[in-house]
Amino acid sequence: MTSQAPPPAYRRLSVEERRSQLLEAALALFAHRAPEEVSLDDVAEAAGVSRPLVYRYFPGGKQQLYEAALRSAAEELEQCFAEPPQGPLSRRLGRALDRYLAFVDQHDTGFSALLQGGSVVETSRTTAIVDGVRRAAAEHILDHLEVREPGPRLRMTVRMWITAVEAASLIWLDEEKNPPLDELRDWLVEQFVACLAATAGRDAQTADVLRAALATEPADGAAGELVRRVLPVLGDATHLL
Amino acid sequence: MTSQAPPPAYRRLSVEERRSQLLEAALALFAHRAPEEVSLDDVAEAAGVSRPLVYRYFPGGKQQLYEAALRSAAEELEQCFAEPPQGPLSRRLGRALDRYLAFVDQHDTGFSALLQGGSVVETSRTTAIVDGVRRAAAEHILDHLEVREPGPRLRMTVRMWITAVEAASLIWLDEEKNPPLDELRDWLVEQFVACLAATAGRDAQTADVLRAALATEPADGAAGELVRRVLPVLGDATHLL
Repeated sequence: MTSQAPPPAYRRLSVEERRSQLLEAALALFAHRAPEEVSLDDVAEAAGVSRPLVYRYFPGGKQQLYEAALRSAAEELEQCFAEPPQGPLSRRLGRALDRYLAFVDQHDTGFSALLQGGSVVETSRTTAIVDGVRRAAAEHILDHLEVREPGPRLRMTVRMWITAVEAASLIWLDEEKNPPLDELRDWLVEQFVACLAATAGRDAQTADVLRAALATEPADGAAGELVRRVLPVLGDATHLL
Repeated sequence: MTSQAPPPAYRRLSVEERRSQLLEAALALFAHRAPEEVSLDDVAEAAGVSRPLVYRYFPGGKQQLYEAALRSAAEELEQCFAEPPQGPLSRRLGRALDRYLAFVDQHDTGFSALLQGGSVVETSRTTAIVDGVRRAAAEHILDHLEVREPGPRLRMTVRMWITAVEAASLIWLDEEKNPPLDELRDWLVEQFVACLAATAGRDAQTADVLRAALATEPADGAAGELVRRVLPVLGDATHLL
């Protein structure tokens, strides 16, 4: 099983490096198999190290390994949303989505298993880790919108959109990664603008945020294209205007 | 524990009636406690029957009871979306949401536990039951939109909105049931129109569906109000038009 790996190689890594190496190997396995189907032996084999070594790092077994891998993935995911506060908001959101969708693309089955639930390795702890990522993403977005005290409507809109993005990611994985990533990204940005606009009709704070955001948008940007493409469809419904 | 219940009373129920009674008692308990905190003894006590009787109906124990209760809740939830195919689409959607939100309101903690995952009674089977409700809801909506062969964009839009509705329900429970149910319902209907509109900008089928739907909307209906409230906010961004 592990005899092909040159034994001296893994002596040189520090504890932290070794741990990262094992977690990376685990995440790569989770990308193609459900978490309950990945054993510590598989990780040892994938990382080219001995089984006792993996057990030394994760004495809690499969569950501990899974939670550590999940925490490492969560940290990576939270980084996706870190974006300098400059330029049109739709571009910033687009870049964050590019990183997020690349993560989804790369982690594939592991990402689905994580979000779809029902796995034997899922616990209230793993659910809390996933929820932490959602909250962090919402905070990032509200920061970019420059809202210091977001009201319940605006906050709920942002969180609803984040859940919708998760759902879209799962469907996208399920449908053999169609449409292409850049189309999916643009569409999700447009969905965000649309959700914000619908809430703006009811909520003064969201209306202010949307006005400020649209003022930063270039005419050839995502918001402009959305407005120009959607207005003709609505234009046929003159009885509503 | 069960001595207060008059023993002869439960002799008269048929097997099916008894089963329904026990499931109702279980669902009422799940509404205020996490599923793992509800024992078969609690159900016996709540239903006023003997413990052996409950064990006879659910020999598989807590897990079997939970799954049966979940299945019964799923059937009830699927009924929420059954709506005659007449009248403006926003009214039909509003009525379906009224029933769905009443269910959320009534089942409270049990609803949260179910959707938030991480419960010890959650398995791939329970996840599949919940997913079945989502799929049924999507089919109902696509039927009302009179789309025989929904393309991937339209389908994804509907499923994203359904997930967003779930997220909104959980946040609503978390935030002490604010805003009031009828406001939440109207807002969710508006979000649906907005999501559909954003997709209509990219997808000819969705544009056709939206045009047909808007044609059935009265000027004083949800879609009309949404359009008239949102256009002024967009109107300030003349550089995008």
